[in-house]
Amino acid sequence: MKGLFITVEGPDGSGKSTQIKLLSEYLQDKGYDIVITREPGGTKISEDIREIILDDKNTGMSPVTEALLYAASRAQHVYEKVIPALKEGKIIICDRFVDSSLVYQGIARGLGIEKIKEINEFAIQGIKPDVTLFLNIDPELASLRRRARQNQDRLEKESIEFHKKVYDGYLRLTKMYPERIKIIDASKSIEKTFNQIKNEIDCLLKK
Amino acid sequence: MKGLFITVEGPDGSGKSTQIKLLSEYLQDKGYDIVITREPGGTKISEDIREIILDDKNTGMSPVTEALLYAASRAQHVYEKVIPALKEGKIIICDRFVDSSLVYQGIARGLGIEKIKEINEFAIQGIKPDVTLFLNIDPELASLRRRARQNQDRLEKESIEFHKKVYDGYLRLTKMYPERIKIIDASKSIEKTFNQIKNEIDCLLKK
Repeated sequence: MKGLFITVEGPDGSGKSTQIKLLSEYLQDKGYDIVITREPGGTKISEDIREIILDDKNTGMSPVTEALLYAASRAQHVYEKVIPALKEGKIIICDRFVDSSLVYQGIARGLGIEKIKEINEFAIQGIKPDVTLFLNIDPELASLRRRARQNQDRLEKESIEFHKKVYDGYLRLTKMYPERIKIIDASKSIEKTFNQIKNEIDCLLKK
Repeated sequence: MKGLFITVEGPDGSGKSTQIKLLSEYLQDKGYDIVITREPGGTKISEDIREIILDDKNTGMSPVTEALLYAASRAQHVYEKVIPALKEGKIIICDRFVDSSLVYQGIARGLGIEKIKEINEFAIQGIKPDVTLFLNIDPELASLRRRARQNQDRLEKESIEFHKKVYDGYLRLTKMYPERIKIIDASKSIEKTFNQIKNEIDCLLKK
């Protein structure tokens, strides 16, 4: 695998989409071949699965079903999009990956990190991010930013207690994987936040 | 759990639907409260997942994705339909369950029985069939019966080699779980096949 696999994590409202856009433009200007993708989704089959997961009519979905659907969507995404792009030497920037499942389903839904890790290791078949950018933002502030949006999906509509658990989960992961996960202070301006990301990625590309 | 959980397994074309109908009528006449259900499917969310799995446009689906989607559909089915019915003391007759995944994804797709078992144990959260009726039919004969059908789904369209692996997989399971899985000779007439099923279920209900 010649490419580079960058994942971006953080609560909804942490500014992931904006920062991914800036990062891809920055790397494109430097001449890299970039693939931007997202989870759940990124392929036709994965997007079909995404629709079931995020449909706010599906309030009766069991947490176990939810966890398995995320893993299924991820399996297809890795197989059909991530692996081929890595083989072609591209830089993939992916909005959410396994860490999201560990945090949302493993911790916030209480299914346990170990179980979710086991299922996802089956799903990703050995593909791991080279680096993960965690956009660190206070859950109350992220909630305020989310509320400014018109349409919130089934997971965004969860209670503030749920989103606090998500946040604590992310902090736990940063301690579990200190080498891979880079903590970015996302409470700052768009520009200041992006400067930190640029530094991390520049360091990585120099290696 | 006061109810009884019967699963029916076998290759497509083994006559599962016909026998399930006969068995449910037989048990209803005896005064039992029956729920007939099927996998993948059985609830609105599970049926949505079923559509993705069986859509014959989804030829690019990875075997890992397929296995996780079956498990997701099963998780919702168990949570929303099987557990509540068992709690109410009903008899559930289910067309396919975990054994189908062990055979189709674990053996025929080559993902390994152990991995598929692990994922499915997470999906079913401790719910296991009281008895499984395996409709035993030669794969060539099952294939002939299938060909008589107008519309075949993505899995029914697989090669005869695939269906032979499925069949061998089922035989392997009957050796792994001789207590639970009852072998029914399904090459006989509908009536003769049903008589064997009646005997097995009558024995079980006397216990």
